[in-house]
Amino acid sequence: MSKKKSLGAETIAPPSPVWVIGSYDAAGKPNMMTASWVGVCCSRPPCVMIALREATYTHGNIMKRRAFTVNMPPGRYAAETAYFGQVSGRDVDKLAATGLTAVKSDSVDAPYLGEFPLIIECAVIKTVELGLHTMFIAEIKDVKASESVLDENGTPDLEKLDPFVFSYGSGGFYGTGGFLGNVSKLAEDIKR
Amino acid sequence: MSKKKSLGAETIAPPSPVWVIGSYDAAGKPNMMTASWVGVCCSRPPCVMIALREATYTHGNIMKRRAFTVNMPPGRYAAETAYFGQVSGRDVDKLAATGLTAVKSDSVDAPYLGEFPLIIECAVIKTVELGLHTMFIAEIKDVKASESVLDENGTPDLEKLDPFVFSYGSGGFYGTGGFLGNVSKLAEDIKR
Repeated sequence: MSKKKSLGAETIAPPSPVWVIGSYDAAGKPNMMTASWVGVCCSRPPCVMIALREATYTHGNIMKRRAFTVNMPPGRYAAETAYFGQVSGRDVDKLAATGLTAVKSDSVDAPYLGEFPLIIECAVIKTVELGLHTMFIAEIKDVKASESVLDENGTPDLEKLDPFVFSYGSGGFYGTGGFLGNVSKLAEDIKR
Repeated sequence: MSKKKSLGAETIAPPSPVWVIGSYDAAGKPNMMTASWVGVCCSRPPCVMIALREATYTHGNIMKRRAFTVNMPPGRYAAETAYFGQVSGRDVDKLAATGLTAVKSDSVDAPYLGEFPLIIECAVIKTVELGLHTMFIAEIKDVKASESVLDENGTPDLEKLDPFVFSYGSGGFYGTGGFLGNVSKLAEDIKR
């Protein structure tokens, strides 16, 4: 046991996922925004939640269109992903600036990034006002992946996806990798 | 751009965070459960959400006590963390089985793990029934960290914390690390 120091009531919960959220504005212009306050939140129906400030361009887009995509960035797109979180779609065309491609989803009214290997198409089912952030809870309508990131069972492989995470504090992205073990097998050590 | 294959409406969103959730049952027995469908969801007030099936022991505990802790597992506790997610507190005393220490939180009615270097004390402010899972939205009342994981500014350092993530598919834990860059600096490459 180690003595602990209080850091106060802060949103310190590293590491956070890094998701690029795709949406259309009222004129149909695609926009991408990077968010870390996100997560899966139900299995049946399959749902995710994303929490956004009302001030963001994406917040207005999703309020109107009731749909978005989640685009999982691989390490080779760390700079583009950082950029998507640092500028507003109100001011710039982020797709034009990065040269990435917006593709219309099949199942929802939102664009995904053609170059990213794993994307999720989501339809909003509920909004929860929490204070500075609005939580959008959305049903997963489809997941699409490039063959290059699938294992022999057709399941996305973490090492092939090469995702990264965000850490409060340094304000930095950190890679993932290094298989620690299968959860059932790891638990056997304790059960024994 | 790569051609994509539909994987259907599944909760495939790797990687997910790995949080150990601490709670007391009606008799005051501490319990720990591992959850991955979790995330930060508001900055003011500072909030997190965790999504749990009603069938879990922790779900009943939190419904009664309206409080829980989030305990961030470092890599050296991967086996204990796996175990916490594989057995129910209804059947076994997980603290006794692992030899880890439950410490009463200062600010909420829930126990944290003395050995884990970063913990968050949370008080439930809202529950949202989504289907198979209930979402508990809770206000962060305090964050506590061991000095050993803080950097020179007193902020938790990801490499010192050595957290890991979970991936659907392999059902495995994967390490984090490898600094990819500060977000503001990475974005400069695109703005230029």
